[in-house]
Amino acid sequence: MSSPHPPTPDRATATEPRRIGWVGTGIMGASMAGHLLRAGHAVTVHSRTRAKARHLLDAGAQWAETPAEAARGADFVCTNVGLPSEVEAVHFGHDGVLSTVSEGQCLIDFSTSPPSLARRISEAAASKGAAALDAPVSGGDVGARNATLSIMVGGDPAAFERAMPLFSAVGKAVVLQGSAGSGQRTKIVNQVLVAASTLGMCEAMHYAQVAGLDPQRVLDAVSGGAAASWALSNLAPRILRGDFEPGFMVEHLVKDLRIARDEAQELGEVLPLVDLCLSRYEHLAASGHPRKGTQGLYLLYRDRLGKA
Amino acid sequence: MSSPHPPTPDRATATEPRRIGWVGTGIMGASMAGHLLRAGHAVTVHSRTRAKARHLLDAGAQWAETPAEAARGADFVCTNVGLPSEVEAVHFGHDGVLSTVSEGQCLIDFSTSPPSLARRISEAAASKGAAALDAPVSGGDVGARNATLSIMVGGDPAAFERAMPLFSAVGKAVVLQGSAGSGQRTKIVNQVLVAASTLGMCEAMHYAQVAGLDPQRVLDAVSGGAAASWALSNLAPRILRGDFEPGFMVEHLVKDLRIARDEAQELGEVLPLVDLCLSRYEHLAASGHPRKGTQGLYLLYRDRLGKA
Repeated sequence: MSSPHPPTPDRATATEPRRIGWVGTGIMGASMAGHLLRAGHAVTVHSRTRAKARHLLDAGAQWAETPAEAARGADFVCTNVGLPSEVEAVHFGHDGVLSTVSEGQCLIDFSTSPPSLARRISEAAASKGAAALDAPVSGGDVGARNATLSIMVGGDPAAFERAMPLFSAVGKAVVLQGSAGSGQRTKIVNQVLVAASTLGMCEAMHYAQVAGLDPQRVLDAVSGGAAASWALSNLAPRILRGDFEPGFMVEHLVKDLRIARDEAQELGEVLPLVDLCLSRYEHLAASGHPRKGTQGLYLLYRDRLGKA
Repeated sequence: MSSPHPPTPDRATATEPRRIGWVGTGIMGASMAGHLLRAGHAVTVHSRTRAKARHLLDAGAQWAETPAEAARGADFVCTNVGLPSEVEAVHFGHDGVLSTVSEGQCLIDFSTSPPSLARRISEAAASKGAAALDAPVSGGDVGARNATLSIMVGGDPAAFERAMPLFSAVGKAVVLQGSAGSGQRTKIVNQVLVAASTLGMCEAMHYAQVAGLDPQRVLDAVSGGAAASWALSNLAPRILRGDFEPGFMVEHLVKDLRIARDEAQELGEVLPLVDLCLSRYEHLAASGHPRKGTQGLYLLYRDRLGKA
C-alpha cells in the first residue's frame, strides 16, 4: 500500500504503435504529423514540396515519393491538403491513395472538403475492404501545435473507435457526427458561424469608427453581453492593432464558403447569409488580400473596396 | 482596533435620495424604476397605461398624468419607451418632458433611439440650462430584473458623474462613450453584432437540420471554438426546444436595425449585413411573428417563409 503508484502511461506509450501514411505538410498537417511521430507511431510522409517535410524527416519520418507510396502497407492513411481538387487528386489521381488501398486500412481525411467528395472516398475505400473517415478540424495553427483541435468526424463507428488513439494525439474535442460526409457537414456549420460573426464584427467595428466612437471603449461595453462572440473577443483587438495577418486565411474561408454554398444548392436550400459572406470574401480576395487573416474583411469597409 | 467594522452601506443607503420622474413602464422600465424606488429615491411615474404602473404605485411611487407632470421639479427625468416616435413624443410633444424642463435638471433616456434624436434632446435641454444623457441598455428583462444591465452613455461628463448613483442602481457595466448620441451609437454597434450572430446561428442550425445532422451533437462540437457566440450558447438551445418566446422581440430588433440603417445612410455608409438582417427580420415580422423572440428567424428557414 505504501509502494509508489506505477507511472501513468502518457499518450506516447499508452498506444500501440501504428504505421501511418501522411499526405500534406502545410502548417496544420506538419504539426499534426509531428504529434503522431512523438506518440511513437511510424510515419511515412508525402508532400508536394519535400522541403516542407524536412522537420518531420529529421524527427524520424520516412519519405514517400507519391501518395500511393505513403499509403502502401499503412494501418492509417491520413491526408491534410488544401483545395477540394487536391483532396480529389491525392485520393483518386494517378499514384493516389486509392490506387493502392487494401483491405483493413483506414483512410482519414483531415482536410475541409465537400461532403459529397467524402462520401465518394468512403465508397471507393469500402469497395476495396477499407474504411474512410472524414475528419475536418477547427482550432487553427495554435490548436494543431498544442494538439487541442476539435475534430468533426463522419464515417463508420468501428473505424472511428479504431482511429481514436490517432485523434487523441492531435485533438481534444473529438465527436463522431454520423455517417460519411457528416464530419464535413458539421465543419460547414462551424464555418457559417465563423463567417457570420466575423462579418458582423467587421461591419460593427467599421460603423464604430465612422461614427466617431472610441472602438476600444465600445468593445469594453459590448463584449460581455448578447453581442459576445469569439470573433469579437479575438479578432476585433487585432483590427485595433492594425494586425491583418492570418490566423485563418481569407482564401481558405472562401473555399469553405463555396463548399457551403454548393452543398446548400445540392440540398435545394437558399442560405442568404452564406451568399453575402462569400461575395464579400471573394471581393476581398480579388482585391489583393487572399492571404490576409479573415479579420481583413474590415479593409473592405475601411478602404471602401466594397463600393462600386 | 477590535471594534467591529461599521456595516458597509449598500446601494439603498449610500446614495442621497433624489426626486426622479420616470416615463415608461414596460418590462424594462418597470424593473428599473423599481430598483430606484428600493434605493430610496422619490419616484413619480407616468405611463401610457396606468395599469402597468400599478406595482410601482403600490411600492410607493407617485402617479403623474403626463410626462411633463412627471418631470416637474425632478432632479432626474428618466424615460424608457419603445419607438423613436414615442421618444420624440414624450420629449417634444404637448405635455412632453421638454415643455417643463428647468435649469439644473438632468434628463436620462434609457430607450434605444436614433443618435440624431438624442442630440436634438440634448440641445433642447441645454437651451433651458438642463443636461441630457442618452443611456440605452443591453441585458434584456433578466438584466433589468437583476440590475445587471450594461449602460452605454452619451453626454456631458459632469452630468454622467451626477447620474452615476442612478446608473449603479440599475446596471453594472456603465461606460460614458462620448458626447450626446454616443450611447445610442454604441447601442447600434451592439445590435449589429447581435443581429449578425443570431442570423448566422439560425442559418447554421437550419443547415444542420436539413443536412441530416444531430443538431445537439453539432452544438457540442462547435460551441467551444471560433464559432462561439452568445447567440449560439443561449438561443440555439431554445430553438432545439422549440421555444420561440422572447427574450428580445423581433419587432424591437427591426426598430433597432432601422435605426442602424438610417444612421449609416446619414454617414454615407453602406452596411450590407445590416441590410440583410433588416430585410430578413422585416419579413419575419410581416409573416405574423413580430412578437416572437429573435431566435424566431429560424422559422423563416424552417417554414420556407423566406422563399418567393
